Amino acid sequence: VELPETLADFERLAAERLDAGPHGYFAGGAADELTMRASEEAWRRIQIRPRVLVDVSERDPSTTLLGERRPHPLIVAPMAFHRLVHPEAEPETARGAAATATPFCLSTLATTSPADLAAAVPDVPRWFQLYVFKDRGVTSGLVEAAADSGFEALVVTVDLPVQGRRERDLRNAFRIDASVPSVGGRSGLSLPEMVEQFDASLTWDDLGRLADESRLPVIVKGVLTPEDARRAVAAGAAGVVVSNHGGRQLDTVAAGAEALPDVAEEVGDEVDLIVDGGIRRGTDVLKAMALGARAVMVGRPAIWGLAVGGAEGVRRVLEVLLAELDVALALTGTPVAAELDATSVQRPYG
Amino acid sequence: VELPETLADFERLAAERLDAGPHGYFAGGAADELTMRASEEAWRRIQIRPRVLVDVSERDPSTTLLGERRPHPLIVAPMAFHRLVHPEAEPETARGAAATATPFCLSTLATTSPADLAAAVPDVPRWFQLYVFKDRGVTSGLVEAAADSGFEALVVTVDLPVQGRRERDLRNAFRIDASVPSVGGRSGLSLPEMVEQFDASLTWDDLGRLADESRLPVIVKGVLTPEDARRAVAAGAAGVVVSNHGGRQLDTVAAGAEALPDVAEEVGDEVDLIVDGGIRRGTDVLKAMALGARAVMVGRPAIWGLAVGGAEGVRRVLEVLLAELDVALALTGTPVAAELDATSVQRPYG
Amino acid sequence: VELPETLADFERLAAERLDAGPHGYFAGGAADELTMRASEEAWRRIQIRPRVLVDVSERDPSTTLLGERRPHPLIVAPMAFHRLVHPEAEPETARGAAATATPFCLSTLATTSPADLAAAVPDVPRWFQLYVFKDRGVTSGLVEAAADSGFEALVVTVDLPVQGRRERDLRNAFRIDASVPSVGGRSGLSLPEMVEQFDASLTWDDLGRLADESRLPVIVKGVLTPEDARRAVAAGAAGVVVSNHGGRQLDTVAAGAEALPDVAEEVGDEVDLIVDGGIRRGTDVLKAMALGARAVMVGRPAIWGLAVGGAEGVRRVLEVLLAELDVALALTGTPVAAELDATSVQRPYG
Amino acid sequence: VELPETLADFERLAAERLDAGPHGYFAGGAADELTMRASEEAWRRIQIRPRVLVDVSERDPSTTLLGERRPHPLIVAPMAFHRLVHPEAEPETARGAAATATPFCLSTLATTSPADLAAAVPDVPRWFQLYVFKDRGVTSGLVEAAADSGFEALVVTVDLPVQGRRERDLRNAFRIDASVPSVGGRSGLSLPEMVEQFDASLTWDDLGRLADESRLPVIVKGVLTPEDARRAVAAGAAGVVVSNHGGRQLDTVAAGAEALPDVAEEVGDEVDLIVDGGIRRGTDVLKAMALGARAVMVGRPAIWGLAVGGAEGVRRVLEVLLAELDVALALTGTPVAAELDATSVQRPYG
Repeated sequence: VELPETLADFERLAAERLDAGPHGYFAGGAADELTMRASEEAWRRIQIRPRVLVDVSERDPSTTLLGERRPHPLIVAPMAFHRLVHPEAEPETARGAAATATPFCLSTLATTSPADLAAAVPDVPRWFQLYVFKDRGVTSGLVEAAADSGFEALVVTVDLPVQGRRERDLRNAFRIDASVPSVGGRSGLSLPEMVEQFDASLTWDDLGRLADESRLPVIVKGVLTPEDARRAVAAGAAGVVVSNHGGRQLDTVAAGAEALPDVAEEVGDEVDLIVDGGIRRGTDVLKAMALGARAVMVGRPAIWGLAVGGAEGVRRVLEVLLAELDVALALTGTPVAAELDATSVQRPYG
Repeated sequence: VELPETLADFERLAAERLDAGPHGYFAGGAADELTMRASEEAWRRIQIRPRVLVDVSERDPSTTLLGERRPHPLIVAPMAFHRLVHPEAEPETARGAAATATPFCLSTLATTSPADLAAAVPDVPRWFQLYVFKDRGVTSGLVEAAADSGFEALVVTVDLPVQGRRERDLRNAFRIDASVPSVGGRSGLSLPEMVEQFDASLTWDDLGRLADESRLPVIVKGVLTPEDARRAVAAGAAGVVVSNHGGRQLDTVAAGAEALPDVAEEVGDEVDLIVDGGIRRGTDVLKAMALGARAVMVGRPAIWGLAVGGAEGVRRVLEVLLAELDVALALTGTPVAAELDATSVQRPYG
Repeated sequence: VELPETLADFERLAAERLDAGPHGYFAGGAADELTMRASEEAWRRIQIRPRVLVDVSERDPSTTLLGERRPHPLIVAPMAFHRLVHPEAEPETARGAAATATPFCLSTLATTSPADLAAAVPDVPRWFQLYVFKDRGVTSGLVEAAADSGFEALVVTVDLPVQGRRERDLRNAFRIDASVPSVGGRSGLSLPEMVEQFDASLTWDDLGRLADESRLPVIVKGVLTPEDARRAVAAGAAGVVVSNHGGRQLDTVAAGAEALPDVAEEVGDEVDLIVDGGIRRGTDVLKAMALGARAVMVGRPAIWGLAVGGAEGVRRVLEVLLAELDVALALTGTPVAAELDATSVQRPYG
Repeated sequence: VELPETLADFERLAAERLDAGPHGYFAGGAADELTMRASEEAWRRIQIRPRVLVDVSERDPSTTLLGERRPHPLIVAPMAFHRLVHPEAEPETARGAAATATPFCLSTLATTSPADLAAAVPDVPRWFQLYVFKDRGVTSGLVEAAADSGFEALVVTVDLPVQGRRERDLRNAFRIDASVPSVGGRSGLSLPEMVEQFDASLTWDDLGRLADESRLPVIVKGVLTPEDARRAVAAGAAGVVVSNHGGRQLDTVAAGAEALPDVAEEVGDEVDLIVDGGIRRGTDVLKAMALGARAVMVGRPAIWGLAVGGAEGVRRVLEVLLAELDVALALTGTPVAAELDATSVQRPYG
């Protein structure tokens, strides 16, 4: 397979290769998809303020996450059902991530269990994304399995108490086939039925207990306001993912790029901030770091890489982003990514 | 009939099924239709600020209107001549409203009298929309008929002293057929001739007298400024509908979403505010309530529902909005709609 | 001929009927035509703040210009070479203006002399637009002719010291035929040659002298800044036309609607302000008056009326604008146009 | 050859005549080309504030650069490999420049050496654009050659420590043919290999040494922030080119028109400011001068002129810009270009 050189090309090719149902499932967002589209656009509207005549002969994209040095700020975002786009499913994606030392975040709705993922791709840094089930036994089973399988962090998604209105799925009459296994021992359920198992009554108190009891650091994913970021810190979170769930949950909420600065101002010195949504260019990654993120999660582009070229496709997607980030660091005159700050960018006026 | 799942699909299907004349009459707005289009767009531009880890396992969309608890904030807006899109006319629409406990507002220009509507659909909560006639006898006859037939409120439309320039009607050479009956005992008149009967000299003094004498609470419909909202309160109105008449009267006035906040600041604590214009999504309803409205009127979507599927179509339109509102309440982290406030949203900068 | 009901339809029909050369001459603007398009758009972006429950049973669009009561605020703008679109030329346009009591402003580059116009259409209120020639004898001859022929005002155009870059004319290789007569006794010249006759060294001192010596009140046309409006007052002007010359001179200058408020703040109490550029709706006229203009000049729409229907077409164009203005006055709740003020509108933020 | 009358027409014609590879090389920008497009748009959004009744019978576009009077503010920007669009390469372009007394800036990546250019077109004012090589011997050789050949200034490009992501070239699989000679004695190298020779570790100290040792005044090209402009002054630069490298280096940086005002405020009184990027109209040139530039560099339009008509095409491109500037000076009421200032323009709000 001839792999393309930009994420936009991966997106286009994946749209050609996937069936409408699975494609719509991953490509689509909630309702009118305004937030989904705005999430990409918001990064583009931020200007970089490039400085010149700095020695940029060596660039260092490394970052620190959960107290550890990481070679770069990319993370593969948790996404459900990789099997829908590749028969090797999550392990195949993880192999592409491993090739670039990128943490892979396994979804509760993955088609691979934590133990199987660890066995299949032992060298990938791995995080586990958790939906809290009404049946807390299921929840603790998942958490234990992740911890036992060398997962390094627990990413608790808090923005899916109910599922958003995803109208491409309605139009495609798309249903997850009952034969697609899901992690929580709940195979045979449709997606809405699975979401029904999640606990919509979850509160910050529950989160606090989870953080207290967890062997793994807890990262709260799905925060868009400084008020909630402050509560996450108070509840003991080690990190916060500023995220609108890929524009798939509530339409017309802020883009990650719009929400990040206020969150960073509130808690940026206290926890690790990660942002996702609409990252399609190395310059987007650079802007995220300038606005206070220590890392970015990349979702759909990884799935398009998987669809187009399996593990090699995922690897190429991540390598393209890293190559673009490298150029961006050089041309911004800030060769050390960790030194990016608010003076590196100019936010739009309106 | 297979009914669609979004209001946009209803709109599209109705455009296919209706003749150009009636379709243009309902779909069209004044002049260049700038305000009509802006009315939808203005809701979309307001961002929701979602809060997470709130117990949203139960959602409560209920509201209080005219001192009474209502299960949800939807109202079917007054619209003329339902018979143009369905032979059963207003009673058919009202049946769809009744199925969702939605108040139905009967227009003075309805093709059904208040008594007939009450007889046909006794279980629908009903309001009566009033145009004040030059001949006050006609006016008081209508008011009495409404009160006698169990109508709960009088919605006095104040933004049609003359009719707006509706150019789709001009292009379609659209005329209301003389055989279409109109409420005020004035059948056989063209629409401009009917509007000629309305009193263009009506003032706040007249409104005050009407409010004083009415057995029913008076709601003033068609206010776009805080100054006029204040006058409505002074005149004894129980409610105000912030409305640009569906963009059908004066082009380039504000969208409801734009006008609402200033009106709410001026009189939101003193009267019940309702807003209409461009409500097409549950998120729009949520935003309206966050900005100070106790209810929203839904016009064209109900007509499209009527055109596509009769009472069942109207019911589905309202159910879709309620389902979307339910999801939006959950995902905003404000399960009790009555607790929405200005912190739930972010207005655009420009 | 079936005459249309909106100015947009007149524009479309005229484009169909006219040859590319003359059409491009009238329809086109300078360079990229950004200002030309922005001039229409700027009116649309201003919102009207409608007031309700005002007695609007009678509307009064009258205004005061040069100390005289006028039945309405419309004026036919000076435009060159009406003969290019109608064999009867300026008298035909003037007949349409006369039918609606609209002042007709004859251009220096008209294909009819002041005396001939006065003879042909004695009942039209008439103004004379003056380009000042290098040869002041020509200038004073024109001024005398106008005064002798019952013209009521001298509109001195000050924004054409050289001609703008009109690229439609370049693309169409459009030339004014030498057989088209021009007023200053200079027939047989091409348009650039005619413009060469104008005095590019004209200053405010010259204007002051002209105002001193003129039997007619002098109106300065082509001002876009408050500084120049102030100088016009100081020079003795009786009026100022805020104008960008239809977007035909310097591209990327302000729209009339954008420039008017600052000019009105500076000199609105001291001279009669007129605005032109992009007036296509009665609401535009209303907004112009709300922002401080006593009258508006209408250019291209009158030419399209002339092209489509001769004098009857011009008349219809003006009647449509007046009918739209009438509705707008009623629906704004300001039945007396002269009472419009800044509270009647909301200017856009950016 | 019939030469067109606007730069847009030259651009269109060149796209028809050139092969995709060379066309893409010159027409393209970095990544999504947002900055490239924004660079043109930013000039358009600035409004001119025209003053009237100023004597503009004579216009003077002259400027002062490096202490010398120049007849006008245009400079042909440095661009690589003119041979790709014309067999006579840089001398042909320079002949067009010479015909309008426009300085021609020879690129380090030119296909003609400084000595050959000087010999071929001795009458063109010439500047030399320098990329600093890792091998400083190459650098000093180039500088000496330029000084020996009558070049008047050294334009040191500082925004290409690494090359931007130019995706049109990737898509076209475009490679500079090894047979295309390049100035630094490095023929036979691909473009990325050439860029590899440049010193990515260059700092302001190096620039300061270069300025100290150079026989020619040093102009720093590629500055977008006032901080760097200040450093350029401190390092001894005689001029600064506010530039984003034609949108070819880092996407989403500011347009020249956006960056210029802050730079001018910081150092406009201390060094000569030049701006490039998106200049397509005489009004753009006027705006640049109003915002503090003493000159503008014109890049792509000159190449399109070369492609369409050789030296005559280049000449026509420059003449069109000068003719448009002449009209703009007249219609702005500022006949002496050097007297333009910030009051001549209105920057957009957002």
